[in-house]
Amino acid sequence: MEVSNRLIVTKTHIEDAPKESHFEVKTESLSLSLASASDEIIIKNLYISMDPYQLNRMKSHSSSQNAISFSAPITPGHAIDGLGVGKVVASGNQKYKKDEVVVGVFTWAEYSVVKEASIINKLDPSQFPLTYHLGVLGFNGLSAYAGLFEVCKPKKGEKVFVSAASGSVGSLAGQYAKLLGCYVVGSAGTQQKVDLLKEKLGFDDAFNYKEQTDLNSALKRYFPEGIDIYFDNVGGEMLEAAVSNMNAFGRVCVCGVISEYTHSGKRASPDMLSVVYNRINIRGFLAADFLNIFPDFVSHTCDQLRSGKLHVLEDISSGVETIPSAFIGLFNGHNVGKKIVKLALD
Amino acid sequence: MEVSNRLIVTKTHIEDAPKESHFEVKTESLSLSLASASDEIIIKNLYISMDPYQLNRMKSHSSSQNAISFSAPITPGHAIDGLGVGKVVASGNQKYKKDEVVVGVFTWAEYSVVKEASIINKLDPSQFPLTYHLGVLGFNGLSAYAGLFEVCKPKKGEKVFVSAASGSVGSLAGQYAKLLGCYVVGSAGTQQKVDLLKEKLGFDDAFNYKEQTDLNSALKRYFPEGIDIYFDNVGGEMLEAAVSNMNAFGRVCVCGVISEYTHSGKRASPDMLSVVYNRINIRGFLAADFLNIFPDFVSHTCDQLRSGKLHVLEDISSGVETIPSAFIGLFNGHNVGKKIVKLALD
Repeated sequence: MEVSNRLIVTKTHIEDAPKESHFEVKTESLSLSLASASDEIIIKNLYISMDPYQLNRMKSHSSSQNAISFSAPITPGHAIDGLGVGKVVASGNQKYKKDEVVVGVFTWAEYSVVKEASIINKLDPSQFPLTYHLGVLGFNGLSAYAGLFEVCKPKKGEKVFVSAASGSVGSLAGQYAKLLGCYVVGSAGTQQKVDLLKEKLGFDDAFNYKEQTDLNSALKRYFPEGIDIYFDNVGGEMLEAAVSNMNAFGRVCVCGVISEYTHSGKRASPDMLSVVYNRINIRGFLAADFLNIFPDFVSHTCDQLRSGKLHVLEDISSGVETIPSAFIGLFNGHNVGKKIVKLALD
Repeated sequence: MEVSNRLIVTKTHIEDAPKESHFEVKTESLSLSLASASDEIIIKNLYISMDPYQLNRMKSHSSSQNAISFSAPITPGHAIDGLGVGKVVASGNQKYKKDEVVVGVFTWAEYSVVKEASIINKLDPSQFPLTYHLGVLGFNGLSAYAGLFEVCKPKKGEKVFVSAASGSVGSLAGQYAKLLGCYVVGSAGTQQKVDLLKEKLGFDDAFNYKEQTDLNSALKRYFPEGIDIYFDNVGGEMLEAAVSNMNAFGRVCVCGVISEYTHSGKRASPDMLSVVYNRINIRGFLAADFLNIFPDFVSHTCDQLRSGKLHVLEDISSGVETIPSAFIGLFNGHNVGKKIVKLALD
C-alpha cells in the first residue's frame, strides 16, 4: 500500500529567530510494505516533541560549532529527526511487531522509516497518556530531575529560582524542588502563566519577567534571603541577575540558553567577582549524560504522578502542518508546558 | 621604649586602578612595652604579603558589596590589615614569647599590635625562607593546590591552561599540574615571564597575551586538542576565549578576576551555549574554604620543595615606603611571582 507522507523541512539554515517562511511541507510517496530482506521499521507517528535545542541544529556550521559537534546538523530540504511516539505499521525487525506503540527518534512527518537503533522503548498505553513519554517521563523530565538533584543537590528549605518556569523542563524542576521542601519562585512571560505556577503547580511565588524593568531588583524582592539554586533555562540578563543575587555556595545548572538560541550576540556577563566571593558553581549539563539514573527518575516520577502531586502541563496542536508554528512558538513563549504536535489518533 | 611606627593608609576609597596618590605614609608613636594587664602582642613586621584582592576591600561600599560581605572594608586613614611574617617584640599572651617568629594577619606597617586571634602559626626559620609562608606555603599555595586538585580534579595527560601564570598562584598551579603529568600552557604579560615559564618552571608552552590580537585563535593554536582545565586568575576576555576552547566536561576554577578588580564594567561574557553543550563547570572558590586540606597541602608542597621539583618565584621590595608601588604594580604586571615587601631583617 502506498501513502502520501507529508513531512516538514527547513528551506534554508536558520541563524536567528525561526519564521514560517523558513519551513515548508514536502510530500513524498511511501510504501507501507517492506521488502522481504529489509530490517527497517515503518512508524505511523502519533506525537512529535517540539524542543528548542533543535534550532541550534538548523544553524549553518560556522555559526554553531558547539551545537553541531554535539548533535548532527539538520540539512535544508531533508527530513528532521526528533523525539516522537508512534505505532508500528510494518516491521522487518523481530523485536517490534505491527501495532506496537514505541517512543524513539522519528521524523517531523506523518510516517517515519527507521532502524532498530532509533527506537528507545516500547510503551504501554494503559499506564499514562502517551504524550508523557515525550515530556515528563522523557528527556524533559530527566533534564529537570538530573539538573535539580544531580547538578544542584538541593536541601530542604533552600531557595530555588526557576526561569521559563511554565515550560516543559522548568515546570517540572520547580515542582520537584517544591516537593522536596524548597522555597520556589518561577519567572514566566504572561500573567496567565504566573497564575498557573502559583495556583496549579504550587510555586511559592512567580512573576512576569516582561513586566520587570530591573531583573536584579525583582530577584532581590522575591528572594530577600538570596538564591541558593538557579535552574537556568534562558541565559542572558536573567542569568546575570540571578548570579548577582546568589548566596554563598550557590549553584546554577544551565539547562538551556534560549535567549542565545535566537540572538547569539546577546550573551550573559555574570559578575565573576560574585562568582569568586560567593563560591558560585555554574554548570552546564545535558540529560543524555544522566541515562544511568533514568530508572530512578522514572520510578520517582511515576510515583508522584500516580499520587497526583506532580502536575503535567501540555500544549498540543494537531496536524503535521502545525509543526512550524508550534516550533516557532517555543521562542515566543506561546506554549504553556510541553509543546507537542499530534499527528494521528492513538 | 617608644618607637615611631610608619604605616601605609589609603587617603580615599579606590574605585578603579590604584595610584600612588591614593596612599600616604602615616607616622604614629608606639610604646614597645605593654601594660601589665594587656593581652596584646606587639609584632615587628619582617615581611608583608601583597595581594590583589585587597583592592576590593578599598572600594566604597556601593561599588563592591560582594567583596565587602566577605571581608571587612578598609577605611581610608586607618591601618590596613594583611598577611605578614613578624617577630614578637612584647607579648601579653603566654602562648607567644619575645623573639618568636609568627605568621598572621598584621598591618601594612613597621609594627603591628594584635591579639592572639590574629596569629596563624609560629614559624621555624631553619626550615624554609620565611617569605615562603606568605606564598608557596601560605594562602597563595593553598589557592593553587585547592583550585587545581579539589575544584578541577585533573587527570594525568589532561590539557591545562593557566592565566597570570607567572603570578604567585598561577606559577604554582601550573607547576602542580605539570608535576602530575598534565600538558600545561600559561599566559603572561612579558617575554621575560614567558621565558621563565618555559625555561625555569617547566611549562610545555607559554605566550604573551599582550602580543595576541585574538585570544580565541591563540588558544586554538596552543590547544589544538582543546582545553580540559582552565585555572582562571584574570576573568574578562581570557575567560571567554578559554570557555570557547574547552573540551566536553571541561572545568574552570575561578581564583581571581583581576581584570574586574580595576575595571568593574569589563565583564566576561562566556558562551553559555558552549557551557551547556560541552557541560562546562565554572566554579568560584576561596582558599579559606579548604583549610581542612591545609596539612595535606603543606606536606605535599614541602616534599616537592625539598626535592627541588617546585620552583618559587618571589619579587621582594624593601621598606614600608615601597608598599604603595608594590601593591600598584600587581595590577600592572610588574611583579614576577609572589610580591612581598620586606620591612626589617629576619
